[in-house]
Amino acid sequence: MLSARNQFKGTVKNVKLGTVMAEIVVDTGNVEVVSIISRGSAEHMTLKVGDKVTAIIKSTEVMIEK
Amino acid sequence: MLSARNQFKGTVKNVKLGTVMAEIVVDTGNVEVVSIISRGSAEHMTLKVGDKVTAIIKSTEVMIEK
Amino acid sequence: MLSARNQFKGTVKNVKLGTVMAEIVVDTGNVEVVSIISRGSAEHMTLKVGDKVTAIIKSTEVMIEK
Amino acid sequence: MLSARNQFKGTVKNVKLGTVMAEIVVDTGNVEVVSIISRGSAEHMTLKVGDKVTAIIKSTEVMIEK
Amino acid sequence: MLSARNQFKGTVKNVKLGTVMAEIVVDTGNVEVVSIISRGSAEHMTLKVGDKVTAIIKSTEVMIEK
Amino acid sequence: MLSARNQFKGTVKNVKLGTVMAEIVVDTGNVEVVSIISRGSAEHMTLKVGDKVTAIIKSTEVMIEK
Repeated sequence: MLSARNQFKGTVKNVKLGTVMAEIVVDTGNVEVVSIISRGSAEHMTLKVGDKVTAIIKSTEVMIEK
Repeated sequence: MLSARNQFKGTVKNVKLGTVMAEIVVDTGNVEVVSIISRGSAEHMTLKVGDKVTAIIKSTEVMIEK
Repeated sequence: MLSARNQFKGTVKNVKLGTVMAEIVVDTGNVEVVSIISRGSAEHMTLKVGDKVTAIIKSTEVMIEK
Repeated sequence: MLSARNQFKGTVKNVKLGTVMAEIVVDTGNVEVVSIISRGSAEHMTLKVGDKVTAIIKSTEVMIEK
Repeated sequence: MLSARNQFKGTVKNVKLGTVMAEIVVDTGNVEVVSIISRGSAEHMTLKVGDKVTAIIKSTEVMIEK
Repeated sequence: MLSARNQFKGTVKNVKLGTVMAEIVVDTGNVEVVSIISRGSAEHMTLKVGDKVTAIIKSTEVMIEK
């Protein structure tokens, strides 16, 4: 169990690889979630379009707009 | 327009105030999003149950689990 | 109103685009603020030198050195 | 030398201690910077009003609003 | 498999609970790692001294000092 | 003294430079720590293999898995 409380299940819709970083777009059904991770992680996980994944966010990283 | 690409509209379901921090639970219809902000911000925005808000997350803060 | 309490108004001084990321340098009058966002956000906002912008930082991301 | 590129020199204007966290307000001359750190760090550094400090922010934590 | 590449196995040495936040000290053998998570997460995971845990950090959150 | 409480001394094992970002792998003896910083910072610090460095992490960025 991971302490990070925000977890969104979805499917990888796009993977863009740079030299150092990677951008992963996850379709969660209602909304798209964009994640920026290292290219090394994306390759180690062999992330590709269609993969079932969970986007995870620590609650201290979530802001509120009203 | 804000550079942070992950924005989830919802309704405040719970506000818990500590001395320094505040925890805001936002019901986005499908999932709950938990946000930790400063108590000062929560008070300045007069956040309360029922408020229409947007939870916002910078994409570099989103991890992927597969 | 956004919960993030640190907001610095300024003018975009430089934009450097990578494949995935972008570096934005903001001149705030007294100091320069460097922001790293996704290239996708920079393009979506059509950020360019001379734009009037605000650099925004969540207070939990600020460290103190003494 | 620290990799974090955003460094704002100033004077501690207020310290608020919670059980776990601490809020430090730094007057940088032009703007106030609000920092949330652990109470443990604030005590270890014996942070108090009037201290000369530097507020430090990693550039990946800075968003842009236009 | 989680994209966050920094993972340190250890044993919980101390748990301090505030109203909103919790501080967890993890003994990893060589060094202590301090983690600040929400009290809600600490309670949901029933974190207590002696628990075998892994401290996890996204690589974009790691700074370098030289 | 810096408020960030997690500091791991080590030696730079690898530097990968992208257009905007840089990945620094630090060998801390027991574990490797991966840091993503801006290329600008890596160049300003002239980071190279063999450099003695400290990897630094703010405690609010550390998650716990149990």
